[in-house]
Amino acid sequence: MMRLGIDLGGTNTVAGLCTTTGTLVDKLSAPTPTGDPEGLCRTMRELCCALCDKHNVPYSEIEQIGIGLPGTIVKATCTLTFGTNLGMSNVCFAQAFEPDFHCPVAIDNDANCAALGEFAGGAGKGTRNLLMVTLGTGVGGGIVINGKLFTGREDIAGEIGHMVIVPDGVPCNCGRRGCLETYASATGLIRLALEAMEHDSTTILHQQMRNNNGTLTAKMVCDACDADDALAKRVFSDYCDYLACGLTNLINILQPDAIVIGGGVAGYGEKLFEPLRARVHSQQFKIGAEGTPIVGATLGNDAGILGAALL
Amino acid sequence: MMRLGIDLGGTNTVAGLCTTTGTLVDKLSAPTPTGDPEGLCRTMRELCCALCDKHNVPYSEIEQIGIGLPGTIVKATCTLTFGTNLGMSNVCFAQAFEPDFHCPVAIDNDANCAALGEFAGGAGKGTRNLLMVTLGTGVGGGIVINGKLFTGREDIAGEIGHMVIVPDGVPCNCGRRGCLETYASATGLIRLALEAMEHDSTTILHQQMRNNNGTLTAKMVCDACDADDALAKRVFSDYCDYLACGLTNLINILQPDAIVIGGGVAGYGEKLFEPLRARVHSQQFKIGAEGTPIVGATLGNDAGILGAALL
Repeated sequence: MMRLGIDLGGTNTVAGLCTTTGTLVDKLSAPTPTGDPEGLCRTMRELCCALCDKHNVPYSEIEQIGIGLPGTIVKATCTLTFGTNLGMSNVCFAQAFEPDFHCPVAIDNDANCAALGEFAGGAGKGTRNLLMVTLGTGVGGGIVINGKLFTGREDIAGEIGHMVIVPDGVPCNCGRRGCLETYASATGLIRLALEAMEHDSTTILHQQMRNNNGTLTAKMVCDACDADDALAKRVFSDYCDYLACGLTNLINILQPDAIVIGGGVAGYGEKLFEPLRARVHSQQFKIGAEGTPIVGATLGNDAGILGAALL
Repeated sequence: MMRLGIDLGGTNTVAGLCTTTGTLVDKLSAPTPTGDPEGLCRTMRELCCALCDKHNVPYSEIEQIGIGLPGTIVKATCTLTFGTNLGMSNVCFAQAFEPDFHCPVAIDNDANCAALGEFAGGAGKGTRNLLMVTLGTGVGGGIVINGKLFTGREDIAGEIGHMVIVPDGVPCNCGRRGCLETYASATGLIRLALEAMEHDSTTILHQQMRNNNGTLTAKMVCDACDADDALAKRVFSDYCDYLACGLTNLINILQPDAIVIGGGVAGYGEKLFEPLRARVHSQQFKIGAEGTPIVGATLGNDAGILGAALL
């Protein structure tokens, strides 16, 4: 038997053929027909058929198809309740692959699928309880407990970005103020830099930003750190303080076997992880000498495909 | 078959005889021989024997004995590694009930046992995932996931009191600053009141405190609220803000089916729970209209005995 996993994004839909033990064999992608539920189901089905045909896998050999998507879901009914970036709501995917595939269909949000993928075949391999943290536009989370995704009441656990760490802090989209997401996302890093730049004309970031049509990116802040820019280094240190505060909170609550970090800012690699470990390990509850392992994700976008396949 | 549960406290040791389905049949207590591991084991064994004898339960009918205690433990080796209030460290309880009882012995910390007790036979009955929060000298936590205690790496998950909610806030015993525990424990409520009293001579709390040998208690603050004391009401509202911030964080991370609140401050009952629900439900992530149920513990000290029996 084999499995199919689909990473449904706002731009592209990627389907992958996987073994039941967590190896991604091959993948195919197509543009996502946003706002068109029927077109989306057709696209997903065609990708699945093409993958099976290419590898001579009979459709009846597929034991389950999983979909990871950006939005809120009801797992029990296999329904996307609200998906802003997909331009659709209240779409049930239970029959989406008929008449070609008659196997069960499972769905979960993309952050959870990435966590399960890293757990099964990536940086979290060998753990039992894993926390995956994604540092992108927001701060996403996925929790694996006893080898299974933990999604809690209404299937929405793991919203770790919406932990307030600064009372009356920066307003967050969720309605609260001072959420981890507003400080520790890529967006948060950019905001921290822009705030600091208002009072500092020496940083190279002003010039970099002009060269980039007035837009500052998280990577530009990291590059400025590499170029030994004082402001960028100070901002990045503050960023690490906020993120370490959030991760230490999560460790004291959950004590996962490891934390896997993915998303854009994780691309800075050890230059992010090393200062994070130093801060977290000196603050966290622990008994032995070793702090909780904090490592980078290794599967990139494939984590979501693999995790979806293994739902 | 029956079970025995022991709530090992710094002052008293209480043993209970329980059914395997979670009913406490009877209990007996004796002073805890602090600092005397051998004496402690003898006391626990004698309480267990006395309970069985009283109810004509053959010792061989006891399928497991559980111990809940205040301290850090290693569950796998049934060892108390560090127990300040018990005056002992590195005590293995695996053979503590020999030669009378040959059944397995399990241990966990007292907060976890209370959570399991409330889950099995108290306010958390019927849930699958439960968070128990104890508002006493500190803020304790116990997490039940899929019907089982979740204790994570090094068996120390659930230290929810050591989630920083105020950066650079009040110093905490754990070494961090601004932990939930420093604001939302009974101790935190007292500190908030004392701070406010420095700038306000109108509150009745000054007189109450003089009448109590200069000591302020959490109950005195609650009583002053009942007497419509303006300062006490303002302080209590701030206290609810801090606690609601922490509980909302925990809900967004874990989405338990319910939160059960125990400990001294929970004695204020609905006058605490009602403002908490209003704050938490307006802030938390949810899909349906209903916020996460927040209820008071119902078993009191029996929760720890029952939970220990069911470990």
